[in-house]
Amino acid sequence: MIRAGIYGATGYTGIELARLLDQHPRVTTVFATARSAAGQRLSDVFPTTLDLPLIAAEEADLSQVDVVFCCLPHGTTVPTVQQALAAGVRVVDLSADFRLRRAEEYERWYGSTHSAPHLLETAVYGLPEVYREDIAQAQLVANPGCYPTSVILPLLPLVRANLLADATVIADSKSGISGAGRSLSLKTHFSETHENFSAYNIGRSHRHIAEMDQETGLSVIFSPHLLPVVRGILSTLYITLLPDTPAARVHEVYATMFADEPFVTVLPDGRLPELRHVVGNNQCVIGIKPVALAPERCIVVSVIDNLLKGASGQAVQNMNIMFGLEETLGLL
Amino acid sequence: MIRAGIYGATGYTGIELARLLDQHPRVTTVFATARSAAGQRLSDVFPTTLDLPLIAAEEADLSQVDVVFCCLPHGTTVPTVQQALAAGVRVVDLSADFRLRRAEEYERWYGSTHSAPHLLETAVYGLPEVYREDIAQAQLVANPGCYPTSVILPLLPLVRANLLADATVIADSKSGISGAGRSLSLKTHFSETHENFSAYNIGRSHRHIAEMDQETGLSVIFSPHLLPVVRGILSTLYITLLPDTPAARVHEVYATMFADEPFVTVLPDGRLPELRHVVGNNQCVIGIKPVALAPERCIVVSVIDNLLKGASGQAVQNMNIMFGLEETLGLL
Amino acid sequence: MIRAGIYGATGYTGIELARLLDQHPRVTTVFATARSAAGQRLSDVFPTTLDLPLIAAEEADLSQVDVVFCCLPHGTTVPTVQQALAAGVRVVDLSADFRLRRAEEYERWYGSTHSAPHLLETAVYGLPEVYREDIAQAQLVANPGCYPTSVILPLLPLVRANLLADATVIADSKSGISGAGRSLSLKTHFSETHENFSAYNIGRSHRHIAEMDQETGLSVIFSPHLLPVVRGILSTLYITLLPDTPAARVHEVYATMFADEPFVTVLPDGRLPELRHVVGNNQCVIGIKPVALAPERCIVVSVIDNLLKGASGQAVQNMNIMFGLEETLGLL
Amino acid sequence: MIRAGIYGATGYTGIELARLLDQHPRVTTVFATARSAAGQRLSDVFPTTLDLPLIAAEEADLSQVDVVFCCLPHGTTVPTVQQALAAGVRVVDLSADFRLRRAEEYERWYGSTHSAPHLLETAVYGLPEVYREDIAQAQLVANPGCYPTSVILPLLPLVRANLLADATVIADSKSGISGAGRSLSLKTHFSETHENFSAYNIGRSHRHIAEMDQETGLSVIFSPHLLPVVRGILSTLYITLLPDTPAARVHEVYATMFADEPFVTVLPDGRLPELRHVVGNNQCVIGIKPVALAPERCIVVSVIDNLLKGASGQAVQNMNIMFGLEETLGLL
Repeated sequence: MIRAGIYGATGYTGIELARLLDQHPRVTTVFATARSAAGQRLSDVFPTTLDLPLIAAEEADLSQVDVVFCCLPHGTTVPTVQQALAAGVRVVDLSADFRLRRAEEYERWYGSTHSAPHLLETAVYGLPEVYREDIAQAQLVANPGCYPTSVILPLLPLVRANLLADATVIADSKSGISGAGRSLSLKTHFSETHENFSAYNIGRSHRHIAEMDQETGLSVIFSPHLLPVVRGILSTLYITLLPDTPAARVHEVYATMFADEPFVTVLPDGRLPELRHVVGNNQCVIGIKPVALAPERCIVVSVIDNLLKGASGQAVQNMNIMFGLEETLGLL
Repeated sequence: MIRAGIYGATGYTGIELARLLDQHPRVTTVFATARSAAGQRLSDVFPTTLDLPLIAAEEADLSQVDVVFCCLPHGTTVPTVQQALAAGVRVVDLSADFRLRRAEEYERWYGSTHSAPHLLETAVYGLPEVYREDIAQAQLVANPGCYPTSVILPLLPLVRANLLADATVIADSKSGISGAGRSLSLKTHFSETHENFSAYNIGRSHRHIAEMDQETGLSVIFSPHLLPVVRGILSTLYITLLPDTPAARVHEVYATMFADEPFVTVLPDGRLPELRHVVGNNQCVIGIKPVALAPERCIVVSVIDNLLKGASGQAVQNMNIMFGLEETLGLL
Repeated sequence: MIRAGIYGATGYTGIELARLLDQHPRVTTVFATARSAAGQRLSDVFPTTLDLPLIAAEEADLSQVDVVFCCLPHGTTVPTVQQALAAGVRVVDLSADFRLRRAEEYERWYGSTHSAPHLLETAVYGLPEVYREDIAQAQLVANPGCYPTSVILPLLPLVRANLLADATVIADSKSGISGAGRSLSLKTHFSETHENFSAYNIGRSHRHIAEMDQETGLSVIFSPHLLPVVRGILSTLYITLLPDTPAARVHEVYATMFADEPFVTVLPDGRLPELRHVVGNNQCVIGIKPVALAPERCIVVSVIDNLLKGASGQAVQNMNIMFGLEETLGLL
Repeated sequence: MIRAGIYGATGYTGIELARLLDQHPRVTTVFATARSAAGQRLSDVFPTTLDLPLIAAEEADLSQVDVVFCCLPHGTTVPTVQQALAAGVRVVDLSADFRLRRAEEYERWYGSTHSAPHLLETAVYGLPEVYREDIAQAQLVANPGCYPTSVILPLLPLVRANLLADATVIADSKSGISGAGRSLSLKTHFSETHENFSAYNIGRSHRHIAEMDQETGLSVIFSPHLLPVVRGILSTLYITLLPDTPAARVHEVYATMFADEPFVTVLPDGRLPELRHVVGNNQCVIGIKPVALAPERCIVVSVIDNLLKGASGQAVQNMNIMFGLEETLGLL
């Protein structure tokens, strides 16, 4: 059995991870930490079948685990990650702290100097469809952001095949409210949010753009919107193809890249994905639609569950790869 | 024009009141107070057509108004109400502070001594269908609670006609989440509430029972539940009638009491009210259903909009009565 | 491997069953039937991982299966069930057709003569917490209704311990809209239902009362309400206990009956269940609340997922028992 | 008093219109027609304060009205409109039948020959912000589509000022489900729609594009999405401006065009509109956002209530103009 620990178990990604690890046939969860809820049990905080005591992070015994998942807030994970690595424990970090390769980019988007820039070089961006081999060897995996997962996967086949006429791509994304986390705010207060819908951080101001640009080499105009559902992201991508790119060629590059991927499904021509196709599972489902009378324009729609393929599901997928397990174990 | 002031304009009842007063043909809103939002404008806090500056309560000029509406938290209104009354300004208080006639009852349910017990004697319980004449003369009207309005109105016809065999009555009530206010809590956090439903404060522990018992003379077993909608209360009442009470007699006592009431509608036999019948209007709609094979059992279902007939709409109805206006003015 | 067939796979219980059987380690689903969708695949009808072709019922080869699940509409299952039994295939029927023991009761509540009254005698009511031994031997299991499961389980401990002072019990139940099925109607049209809430079939007119009365020996005043969520039932039960029944005794009878039950959880004193505790799992969670100042009154709140413990989850639990498997297999 | 008739009063636009006319101080609604519900009353079909009998269209007495509103399905209105015009009654048509100026365009997008092409020449496109003077004189006003209203209004200032570098514009629109009408379908079935989100008819296949292109002179890539709320449309527009267009100039052209418009609000720099700003009112609210580091790219977000500014509210606004009333009468 792989022995795992969870740092920050009482946020939505932590809770989802606890649930996934509990049903994973090859994992035992040894500890779960929390800040304000330390001393309670996980089931006091949230209904769950995995009823661990919640301990303070300092009480975590790293000698008892093979891997830790960090579900801590952005900007706070470096000491925990360093401690784990020093103890020989492999790390899957779900924060944004190790996703960017260059410390300058981190500083530019996150507004502060990175305190362990050398780790950025060794960290592997945890998108298995791209970095599977590196993940298998990695000590530190930086689990991708939820929005970036929904944007990068459907862009990469076109990028790799050099089919884009314009490096500027529009990603109009709509996310369920669990993506905003479990911290209280009027923006996530039921009576302000239900029967509402809004855009926020548009105009290339959202930090997730850094990952999208890094992984695609494009310049993504990313517009996030807040959808009155709990889970799920749907991204609508607007792409300009090279003139005279046949529709069949577009489908072909998707089929080629994702043919053997267990967690990416490309829909047949004319079908579009819906949120409910993926809520509760680890799939990314992609639909492709040419634009009538404007053949060089192409619209691609992708959906993921922000807490699964967009966070904790992908983290377990990464762990499976790191420990040589079947990649889908505990995720189907 | 009647000149009005609003204390506590940034909670949901305050915002709704501002909206109602803005569209009222005979009212000018002179001031609106807020605590933390003082210095901003009402439209900064919430989308609204009435764009008043928000002032601190101490800055309110009582010499400029004929009436004030207090939308302050329970237990905090006494000084404000006393100040207004001393300035000769009439008051509609939307808190629970003046709804109970006896200070002992207040102390029993609210857990602290009432600081102005003499005001309890002069305050009029603002249920127009019962106290219309007293409200017309009142300096201080205690606007009823939302749940009590939905429970008292459908019980009174049976109480007055002495048709009840049992003074214990069950009220199973379901309320939209705006009833929990605009303060942040996990209980009103979208991702914890959407697709959820729960009972709370059951077993005669909710404070609103004090009003229900006081106004009906019964002992109400009241079970509130939190409904994943923004607005509306539906109460299902379980009543034991005197043996051999004909169904027609039950309908008759409702028809008699509410025949001329502009804001109470009794549905014809066999029809039941739904939340959407009242969301956005000031009606209380009531449906009556005898129980097959158990003729002495009767189920009554009532619906109101918790922010209108359950709070700000009823407050405006009370103001109309206090100032001799047509009771429905600004409410249709 | 147990070989299973599903009749009526495209309604919500059928779809949920297909999903459960797909992830069950000891079951292979051999066929799935549909009426209007015959010829399509299950994944054309609904997003799912179990991608079976949909065949007409007449094409089903009963020689290939050990068990069939009937998810057909009430009043239509007798021929299918008879055919399966004649072929030596065991049956779990999710309709209401075999739940009542006496043909007269069936006729009274369903308004038509039962066409196979002899089967009513051999059918076992599929509530494992009550009839586990009989289910193990049964050829035909009548899977309980969703509402009855949520009402019978929390009543039985009190009934068995003879703690009730009154045989009339009130069950105020609230159900998610998937309980109304996949057939189209204005009552399940999004724009009529969202932000709405209503009671229906109250006053002892709902057919599920027949099961409740049969299994408890009580007379249940059952009031169903339509909740604007997809899944889940919460039932609030109002019970009159014998005078001087200690609260501890009440908890004791629940603890005794459900101590070893894998799918019934009784909450500790003072805690109440919420819908989200059970949505997606096969649990029935029960909370008990005495009424202050009225010790003989007791309120019990139960929650289930109407499609799991209320339908397809319980059906799989029954199948596990019938075939001697661990009762929780494929359900955790 | 203006005497009005409503054809097709039981769809969502008809019901909303009945409500608006009922509260309009200068209108009496003389008749309301329905097909299947003829013989019932409007309040039997939907909770409403305007309790008209529903008559068959043939029974409508055109000699009793000054204006009729046609809320009939697309492709069916020509005979009714011709009859009304022949009787000297002015018409506001809420269908798509008279919105396109050229019969060829109608045929191209709607797939059938227009049966009264001469009426297309006299019909006025009922967007008051553009055609106010023509509307005042019109016998036949073609009320704009909901999506086109949300897309055309925020594009026109830039078009008129010749600030666009590219005639291809992207409109990513999200609409509440009432926009899909009151007819039953799985796409509007609660359990399929709640907690779901999807794109449909993308790739320049939605018929509303015809209006958008006609009124803007652009080629709009329009992607509609189905939002799990009842009311409201939010459109996110992606525009390429001429190089070196100052942000201030963009704001200026919006301010200039909409300065005196009672029902268009342009937000100050940095603020974005939300659905709840407009649900229940007749406003179109617009926010403008330049794209960091890509100054020629501009994102504009607009919101309307699809049943008000997107349909029945705009129809009343048009009627007010046609009859020389204050444009906002009955709409504030």
